[in-house]
Amino acid sequence: MNTLEKEDISDWFQGLQDTICHGLEKLDGKSSFVEDKWKRADGGGGRTRTFKEGDLIEKGGVNFSAVHGPTPTKILDALKLKEADFFATGVSIVLHPNNPWVPIIHMNVRYFEMDNGVWWFGGGIDLTPHIIIEEKAQIFHDSLKKICDSHHENYYPKFKIWADDYFYLPHRNETRGVGGIFFDRLSPEESISKDDRWNFVKDLGSSFVSIYTSAVKDLRSKVWADTDREWQEIRRGRYVEFNLVHDKGTKFGLDTDGRTESILVSMPPRAQWHYDFKPTDEEHLRTQSLLKKGINWISK
Amino acid sequence: MNTLEKEDISDWFQGLQDTICHGLEKLDGKSSFVEDKWKRADGGGGRTRTFKEGDLIEKGGVNFSAVHGPTPTKILDALKLKEADFFATGVSIVLHPNNPWVPIIHMNVRYFEMDNGVWWFGGGIDLTPHIIIEEKAQIFHDSLKKICDSHHENYYPKFKIWADDYFYLPHRNETRGVGGIFFDRLSPEESISKDDRWNFVKDLGSSFVSIYTSAVKDLRSKVWADTDREWQEIRRGRYVEFNLVHDKGTKFGLDTDGRTESILVSMPPRAQWHYDFKPTDEEHLRTQSLLKKGINWISK
Repeated sequence: MNTLEKEDISDWFQGLQDTICHGLEKLDGKSSFVEDKWKRADGGGGRTRTFKEGDLIEKGGVNFSAVHGPTPTKILDALKLKEADFFATGVSIVLHPNNPWVPIIHMNVRYFEMDNGVWWFGGGIDLTPHIIIEEKAQIFHDSLKKICDSHHENYYPKFKIWADDYFYLPHRNETRGVGGIFFDRLSPEESISKDDRWNFVKDLGSSFVSIYTSAVKDLRSKVWADTDREWQEIRRGRYVEFNLVHDKGTKFGLDTDGRTESILVSMPPRAQWHYDFKPTDEEHLRTQSLLKKGINWISK
Repeated sequence: MNTLEKEDISDWFQGLQDTICHGLEKLDGKSSFVEDKWKRADGGGGRTRTFKEGDLIEKGGVNFSAVHGPTPTKILDALKLKEADFFATGVSIVLHPNNPWVPIIHMNVRYFEMDNGVWWFGGGIDLTPHIIIEEKAQIFHDSLKKICDSHHENYYPKFKIWADDYFYLPHRNETRGVGGIFFDRLSPEESISKDDRWNFVKDLGSSFVSIYTSAVKDLRSKVWADTDREWQEIRRGRYVEFNLVHDKGTKFGLDTDGRTESILVSMPPRAQWHYDFKPTDEEHLRTQSLLKKGINWISK
């Protein structure tokens, strides 16, 4: 009965990459994506599309990949399996804006299956403002809740907490930003079919440009001071810390000999570290106080 | 017969921190160290000394710590032990210079013991030039070989290879810099007593200021171009990658709830990442070609 094939999923993701790149170029208005196609020695490959020196976006990447072959030992061990071929496909995005008032955004949607019949969807989207504007965080979460709710009432409450826990730096005791949603290993459940899961993932992916457009609206031309730029680069330093120390995708990619330049396209163009930096600006202090789990960002 | 007590070692390390800070302030001539004393909830503490905006050094730290208490589970598991109290003391240094021609330097000397009688020394020193000058790398390695040889003929050959293997970024297929020496778990051996090990570690520690002074000589006032500064910040990005992804001390510190600001004082003041950056400057290209294991830097 299951007519959804892995090729359908990877084809759709590839189309999603096109749509998102096109939408972002339109939104930016100045720069455009440059594509690198790559092949993986053990099977499959990808299209890494990078963006730099735009009007809105200083540096970013929108990656598509569809890879297959013998399942890496790390995954086999985690699943207590001996041997299986895998197929994995997805789209990954990180955008670092010019203006410190504009948030960093990240989205990932992915599908994984093994030839023993195991499969799951995973993904997430989260917003990392250098300077938090509550109303913007609300709009972001409202739109995620709306997408989630149209698929399952448990999705938003569950995936929001999952994001709080995932996008978290224990060594800083702070969240990466205002969170969003995160989900992994979404397999079939009693009342949820593969097509249901897939429709949710497609809806989330399709909404990216409109969500990001709302998130940057009225902010990209906001005046900023030198101290805001310094603060932005310090917050980017925390982004580096998260991605290199905690992010599972980055770790897994580097551990399994992935394409380094595609994986680390998530790094910011510039970052700063100062010993024991304490912000003095009111907006920066307020931002720091909001980098915690458990905030209900839904408006009402 | 063993009269060397852990307090003797930590006292000496604390004195070494004083000596090195004094020597570096003299060498820099502009800025000076600021000290933060800290206590560890489970026992012991440290003195974090940081330096910024000097004439020679843009950002740096010289840390001393002496901590004790129940051994962290990670170490117990690695040693297949159930329970033991530990004591660890050491001095750790990372200096990021202003001038791209001046190398980053790192040194660590440390002692670890448990109340079951297990003990060892560890440490290392390595040089990370943004632009490699062969003669300087030779002087650096010659001086390390001299110190090593005066203690044991096997030390330099063994510890040099160990450094090549340790200060290495597999995901970049490059070494962090021109290496140096690295050693860990130096316990007693047939013909090598605890005092012998200690004398070697003391000799290495005591030589730091003179080694660094040679390493920066004639370089700190060298004229550099904007492209050198950009290249420096890209190389610093690799330094960040090494420390956050590979460095065992950083990983262990962050995993065991260490003092984050003291651990991450090793981060550079500014770093850059560009997608698939390829240097075009001849000196930068030559540097990149020398970031590999197995180079014999000893002059003859």
